[in-house]
Amino acid sequence: MRAKTPSDSRTVMTDMVLPSETNPLNNLFGGELLARMDRAASISARRHSRRITVTASVNHVAFNRSVPLGSVVTVEASVSRAFRTSMEIFIDVWMEDRFTGERAKANEAIYTFVAVDEAGTPTEVPQLQPETDLEKERFDAALRRKQLSLVLAGKMEPNKATELKALFTS
Amino acid sequence: MRAKTPSDSRTVMTDMVLPSETNPLNNLFGGELLARMDRAASISARRHSRRITVTASVNHVAFNRSVPLGSVVTVEASVSRAFRTSMEIFIDVWMEDRFTGERAKANEAIYTFVAVDEAGTPTEVPQLQPETDLEKERFDAALRRKQLSLVLAGKMEPNKATELKALFTS
Amino acid sequence: MRAKTPSDSRTVMTDMVLPSETNPLNNLFGGELLARMDRAASISARRHSRRITVTASVNHVAFNRSVPLGSVVTVEASVSRAFRTSMEIFIDVWMEDRFTGERAKANEAIYTFVAVDEAGTPTEVPQLQPETDLEKERFDAALRRKQLSLVLAGKMEPNKATELKALFTS
Amino acid sequence: MRAKTPSDSRTVMTDMVLPSETNPLNNLFGGELLARMDRAASISARRHSRRITVTASVNHVAFNRSVPLGSVVTVEASVSRAFRTSMEIFIDVWMEDRFTGERAKANEAIYTFVAVDEAGTPTEVPQLQPETDLEKERFDAALRRKQLSLVLAGKMEPNKATELKALFTS
Amino acid sequence: MRAKTPSDSRTVMTDMVLPSETNPLNNLFGGELLARMDRAASISARRHSRRITVTASVNHVAFNRSVPLGSVVTVEASVSRAFRTSMEIFIDVWMEDRFTGERAKANEAIYTFVAVDEAGTPTEVPQLQPETDLEKERFDAALRRKQLSLVLAGKMEPNKATELKALFTS
Amino acid sequence: MRAKTPSDSRTVMTDMVLPSETNPLNNLFGGELLARMDRAASISARRHSRRITVTASVNHVAFNRSVPLGSVVTVEASVSRAFRTSMEIFIDVWMEDRFTGERAKANEAIYTFVAVDEAGTPTEVPQLQPETDLEKERFDAALRRKQLSLVLAGKMEPNKATELKALFTS
Repeated sequence: MRAKTPSDSRTVMTDMVLPSETNPLNNLFGGELLARMDRAASISARRHSRRITVTASVNHVAFNRSVPLGSVVTVEASVSRAFRTSMEIFIDVWMEDRFTGERAKANEAIYTFVAVDEAGTPTEVPQLQPETDLEKERFDAALRRKQLSLVLAGKMEPNKATELKALFTS
Repeated sequence: MRAKTPSDSRTVMTDMVLPSETNPLNNLFGGELLARMDRAASISARRHSRRITVTASVNHVAFNRSVPLGSVVTVEASVSRAFRTSMEIFIDVWMEDRFTGERAKANEAIYTFVAVDEAGTPTEVPQLQPETDLEKERFDAALRRKQLSLVLAGKMEPNKATELKALFTS
Repeated sequence: MRAKTPSDSRTVMTDMVLPSETNPLNNLFGGELLARMDRAASISARRHSRRITVTASVNHVAFNRSVPLGSVVTVEASVSRAFRTSMEIFIDVWMEDRFTGERAKANEAIYTFVAVDEAGTPTEVPQLQPETDLEKERFDAALRRKQLSLVLAGKMEPNKATELKALFTS
Repeated sequence: MRAKTPSDSRTVMTDMVLPSETNPLNNLFGGELLARMDRAASISARRHSRRITVTASVNHVAFNRSVPLGSVVTVEASVSRAFRTSMEIFIDVWMEDRFTGERAKANEAIYTFVAVDEAGTPTEVPQLQPETDLEKERFDAALRRKQLSLVLAGKMEPNKATELKALFTS
Repeated sequence: MRAKTPSDSRTVMTDMVLPSETNPLNNLFGGELLARMDRAASISARRHSRRITVTASVNHVAFNRSVPLGSVVTVEASVSRAFRTSMEIFIDVWMEDRFTGERAKANEAIYTFVAVDEAGTPTEVPQLQPETDLEKERFDAALRRKQLSLVLAGKMEPNKATELKALFTS
Repeated sequence: MRAKTPSDSRTVMTDMVLPSETNPLNNLFGGELLARMDRAASISARRHSRRITVTASVNHVAFNRSVPLGSVVTVEASVSRAFRTSMEIFIDVWMEDRFTGERAKANEAIYTFVAVDEAGTPTEVPQLQPETDLEKERFDAALRRKQLSLVLAGKMEPNKATELKALFTS
């Protein structure tokens, strides 16, 4: 399988924040944003793998900025690293003020998807070839995140997660 | 403010998996489950704080089991630890086979909510008094998770996260 | 088939009232509540019978209290009596004020479901063994309601509905 | 206030049955039909009263025929009797086979709505003047139904419900 | 195949405008109205042809009046002319003020549907026999619209569209 | 007001086709696509004008290719010409096969939006400066479309629509 670049899977989902998606402060529900990011990430994973893809995990997500009713929200997802059958998807969320048009970073999130066949069995995916500096940086960090994920799931001994361990013992 | 127990905020949301919520393998979309858990956790945080509550972050979530179309899904949320203005919510997700009724753990997730006033300013919340062994265990672990969250957000030096550091250096 | 208790089928569905579900007075539409109760009752009937279940009828429902936008609504359903292939489901609806947390009874409703096989043919269901006083009271009343239902449908002579007749002639 | 006829409030709501509205047998959920009937009846009550109208109660509803996915469903509602501040709405539901076009009665239901002002206080509505034989028959039966409703709510002594009592003692 | 009249396919879809369907001025989104008209027109085309019907095109639609939140909207569709395998559907949209009940024309639109078999192949439909003056006028105009459509799609030479050409050269 | 380019308003909305949006042949409903295009076009018009924008009209839309369940649909909208208070938006729709990833043009559509202030009064918008050949071609054609629209609305004499007339008389 030929390696692919992050651009090959880049997925842009722009949409408004509607009244039925807002909390009592008239801001977008966190859960609605998580669902939109999942749909965008799922399309991105499919574009990379050309397989059915299912959500395997969601990395830690922080909601630093509230997104008001009527904003335009742009969710941009692309594959940041491919493993054997799984893909890490990096998602950037931008919000745009309804009137001034001011654009600000609203969120970042990282989801992992697995490619499966019709029976649900994991199948191999193409490797990822990062191109820009940002893509390379995210590609490298993805390995540390995978180790953390394995440690948290009890599938890797903490002291074997060499890249991660360095963070805490340096 | 009088401390509250996890039972005071326990929230049970039982519902079916409908066709519009499923992926090409006829299983519940990960994003839909994330949104349901957010609604249940938000009600739980409100029951603890009696304030408007907004999603602050979602901890790492792993989707270990797929949830087929037509399953009954039960999302159970309760506050696992209260900090000054934020609350950690622990969420257990159970699925029930449509016909056999067999019940299995489908997921666990941890969300953090902040209590705010009408202007969106964080406000204090009651402390949590865990009662059962499981509640106590989750209460203790919540501190380590908060440290990890602060480290990942760059708001705490890794080597000051004493509880967390122990994990990697023992 | 072993008899079951009302607890075996108890179903709790807690959720918020969203803007898209409210009328011009900003209260929950009656029709939306009827639909939520139907979903909860349907899950309850399935838990009792472990069969596909379809709504057979809805008893008289009175909407005595309006449920404002932003309230938390808890729908609690459990089987109140089982007949040969049908089940009466008793539903209690509670509402909780968004800020004070004050909890009040919003509604009661009674639905009847039939258990069917894949071809839609009615099939037998386990009997119900009520346990608490309230469960026993609802179990007894269910028989009078079934008679009333048969009379209204023209399937029972009014003067043979002995339990019901007593109400009007005493 | 000038009396109105049932035609003045006749409301026709034709729509399809979509996949997200069906149960495991691929038939329309009872709860979805209850919600559609509520919307149609609410429009009918508003057309009669020109007021905000809220659902007061739903009479006994029997689901005698299942409505398959893809059917066209026509809900026809009109006021069958007006009381001082409330209106009884009679609803006929027709289903049409997707291909043959065969039209069959799927359901009947009776809802009661109350007209209110902006503060939610009940306000008077015009009287109803039935015209056809069917309208007159429904107009007469509405009084017996109101008595039954009052008896069931404990607001009228059963032996004072003269029209109703006749049913059981003749 | 016996010819049918416009009444045979007349479809009335009355419904409210809900908060989740409105733009920042609290008026119905144009796109929502386009979707409702498509559903009504699709039912109308099916009633005429008793076949699966798919949207082939939408004629020019002008949105001359805004439809406020809470209005009652009535979409009335009927076949205005049948060609070999396609049908032109004329749609009238009425809006009704929530309180005064004042009824005004909100829109007109013209959609074209094609009748197909299970494999998606176009199949013949009955001819249309217009009855009233308005129906006859729409029937005649439909031919000019079809010519315009063919010209715009590059499937007919402009100077062979005799009925249409007359408009510009007279 | 400084002129803007089509790129300034380019809006990309990528999403899947879900089961609740499909017709009996399991293809996307025409009406759903019309609604998605309206949302994308509305965001595009807002990005050009930084005003509230409302749909004024939809040009002729032909549905030449059906879009199957599970496809990924990309709606791309940008302003093709600005008039005094209105903007023509050109929309390209691409579909992507779920598995092969083959990308094909599914549709083209042209919507017109008007910029308004909070009171709904039309307000001026920046002019458009096309850059690429395709943008220039669409910019020129927009004038002919506006003439056709005025003629069809009876607001311009056919023989004064010089650009349009040429089409039929050459």
